[in-house]
Amino acid sequence: MTSSENNKPVGVAILGLGTVGSQVLRLLGEHETDFTARIGGEVQVRGVAVSDASKPREGVDPSLIIDKPEELIDREDVDIVVEVIGGIDYPRELVLRALRAGKSVVTANKALVAAHAAELSAAADEAGVDLFYEAAVAAAVPVVGMLRRSLAGDKIVRISGIVNGTTNFVLDAMDSTGASYEDALAEATRLGYAEADPTADVEGHDAASKAAIMAALGFHSRVTFDDVHCEGITGITAADISAAKEAGQTIKLLSICERIVDEDGREAISARVHPTLVDRSHPLASVSESYNAIFVESEAAGQLMFYGNGAGGNPTASAVLGDLVGAARNKVHGGRAPGESTYADLPVADFGQVTTRRQIDMTVRDRAGVLAVISQTFSEHGISLQTVRQEAAENGARLIVVTHAAREHEIAETIDALGGDDEVLSVDSVIRLAD
Amino acid sequence: MTSSENNKPVGVAILGLGTVGSQVLRLLGEHETDFTARIGGEVQVRGVAVSDASKPREGVDPSLIIDKPEELIDREDVDIVVEVIGGIDYPRELVLRALRAGKSVVTANKALVAAHAAELSAAADEAGVDLFYEAAVAAAVPVVGMLRRSLAGDKIVRISGIVNGTTNFVLDAMDSTGASYEDALAEATRLGYAEADPTADVEGHDAASKAAIMAALGFHSRVTFDDVHCEGITGITAADISAAKEAGQTIKLLSICERIVDEDGREAISARVHPTLVDRSHPLASVSESYNAIFVESEAAGQLMFYGNGAGGNPTASAVLGDLVGAARNKVHGGRAPGESTYADLPVADFGQVTTRRQIDMTVRDRAGVLAVISQTFSEHGISLQTVRQEAAENGARLIVVTHAAREHEIAETIDALGGDDEVLSVDSVIRLAD
Repeated sequence: MTSSENNKPVGVAILGLGTVGSQVLRLLGEHETDFTARIGGEVQVRGVAVSDASKPREGVDPSLIIDKPEELIDREDVDIVVEVIGGIDYPRELVLRALRAGKSVVTANKALVAAHAAELSAAADEAGVDLFYEAAVAAAVPVVGMLRRSLAGDKIVRISGIVNGTTNFVLDAMDSTGASYEDALAEATRLGYAEADPTADVEGHDAASKAAIMAALGFHSRVTFDDVHCEGITGITAADISAAKEAGQTIKLLSICERIVDEDGREAISARVHPTLVDRSHPLASVSESYNAIFVESEAAGQLMFYGNGAGGNPTASAVLGDLVGAARNKVHGGRAPGESTYADLPVADFGQVTTRRQIDMTVRDRAGVLAVISQTFSEHGISLQTVRQEAAENGARLIVVTHAAREHEIAETIDALGGDDEVLSVDSVIRLAD
Repeated sequence: MTSSENNKPVGVAILGLGTVGSQVLRLLGEHETDFTARIGGEVQVRGVAVSDASKPREGVDPSLIIDKPEELIDREDVDIVVEVIGGIDYPRELVLRALRAGKSVVTANKALVAAHAAELSAAADEAGVDLFYEAAVAAAVPVVGMLRRSLAGDKIVRISGIVNGTTNFVLDAMDSTGASYEDALAEATRLGYAEADPTADVEGHDAASKAAIMAALGFHSRVTFDDVHCEGITGITAADISAAKEAGQTIKLLSICERIVDEDGREAISARVHPTLVDRSHPLASVSESYNAIFVESEAAGQLMFYGNGAGGNPTASAVLGDLVGAARNKVHGGRAPGESTYADLPVADFGQVTTRRQIDMTVRDRAGVLAVISQTFSEHGISLQTVRQEAAENGARLIVVTHAAREHEIAETIDALGGDDEVLSVDSVIRLAD
């Protein structure tokens, strides 16, 4: 029975009262009449689940606070559950409990969706309720809605961009001040852009969860966090950034999802996160601080770009509330948003099958014939070179090679071979280039 | 009864087989299995209405062609009507006929929606069917979906950007080649960026229709084409562009929708289209050729930006097909997208109430005290000046004044007064500045 049939308000349970939860609660209160009008019925917050109910919380009606989320979810007058706790295992239990009880769920939890989309979607389908997660990717930049609905009639070829604000802040700071990774990260922590434990951000896990979600939606296939090849920014040095700068480039942590064809001619998906050299003239180079930017390339629409603040309480609350309006409308008027779509069932390619271009910076012996020997090593591995630059260096010569696109495994084999090459004193840095 | 109840395919009628219609038909055929999977049921094109059925059409099944759109719409096995004819009066009749017969409608027709949204939405509401028009604004850049759904939980403050590809192509060409307006337009026509009769584009009517649609959606109010203040680009000269260039600026035709407070303290909407001076460092300045870019500023999400190809058969077909998937899903599974939302019912402000900044370029007498007299004229009208630049000129002196933000009617009155001022030989150009 939909709520409209008896004019009952739509009951909402909020799980979590951190940065996002408190903004969701505040905005729901401040714009109550707007929500009622847009939904076509009233929304009432039934309770807010927190871990410590004794903590004083300014501006929050104390009678709403509860430390037993299960009890809140189970209430008969709760129709929609908003999950903004974070973590994976416990939110998974709570979200499943809600879906199985016929409650629609709105979550901002990228790690949860990237790990358990199949299980959660199946539970939502079985109960005929909505599972929304616009906030899980780039906050209010409507990437999820765009992939799920707007481009539902198109064939998406590639999704790439900056979807983690913390690492972008760190790399931007390193680029603009010349700071070391450690100093830039400390500054990001001080300013609240990085969490006390920054692992999920700096190791690329957060960006990888978002890549999994985007790839699954864009390619109508099953892609989970474990399918995403993930390299973070902890290895990026001030020297890397400064070398990039000299060459008119900067380094960005990109999430890239694309259709590829592997060596056996099979269509497959690549989803990956890694630091990437980007030309200064590329629009992604000017994405500063904690902003996000996503490029989507599709067969008919061509290239689309979306840009905005991809993190923070308010932008994330905007996305959660957009989903909440959608879920509440369906509770009031009946109907349901499209469920998960994985019909295309494309396999995720082994990372070795992915094609990238690399810049390899090495120190070589400064003597005649070196270039010939090294070129030979590349060519034996089937890799052709796009540019070669040789400079004087303290010990020997510095050789900076940019390859044409080649399979990752071919490049890895080449770099192994270069390491064993007598002429090569050291391979100092290897980084991928943006297309 | 939904189609799923009897497993019947969803029948589609396409009205119009121009640039957009032919791509819609082609893509539907090429990706048939994808559409079936994404919709959860088969889509079948029942017919394509054209004005001249005798014309040979390569690659189109002749049995689909019909020159009586009413007959096609009325067919029992047509569930969704795609209107891509263009024009207003005749498509209005056809769309109303379809909606009243319980058929969902997907249209790319901005002029139709901007003129008759109220009537069409009422008909869709009454019949309980969908009326979709993502393609009406910026083609596949999902502005409509974003305003209608993604930001449904936020308060939008301002929507502004470049939404007409033809005029952007012309202005971009004038900027990069120094060409006159006439020559740049001729080039745009030759390359297919401008139609044989370019009036709707160059006079700003097309951009005004889009502004009306964006303002109505964003502010949940009734805004029609007639409410939009509209100035085109026909008055922009090579001299204007060159002066802008010297000052580190360029000229763009912007559509601007914003909440304002009028002199009586009433909240209102401003929707307008006019040429605007944009600093070269502003992201809008680098939007080239026929691309579109839209900035949306909202209370919680902050500033979002969307960019892409806003015209052409394929990008428009992508948007139409996204809508078609949505409408077909609803036919198969039941349910309906949210209808029109105009509950906020904000009035559209008189254009005189709108606040803008202006650059006024005039020739004045070259004698002592001129600046004092002219400053006096501005100050008498309550307008304060942000910058004043005086240069030597052939007859007298050139004075370029940039005002602080002021109401349009105050600026108009000031310019009238300047015209009557003895010290002012001519007011050579008056143009608004972007924020």
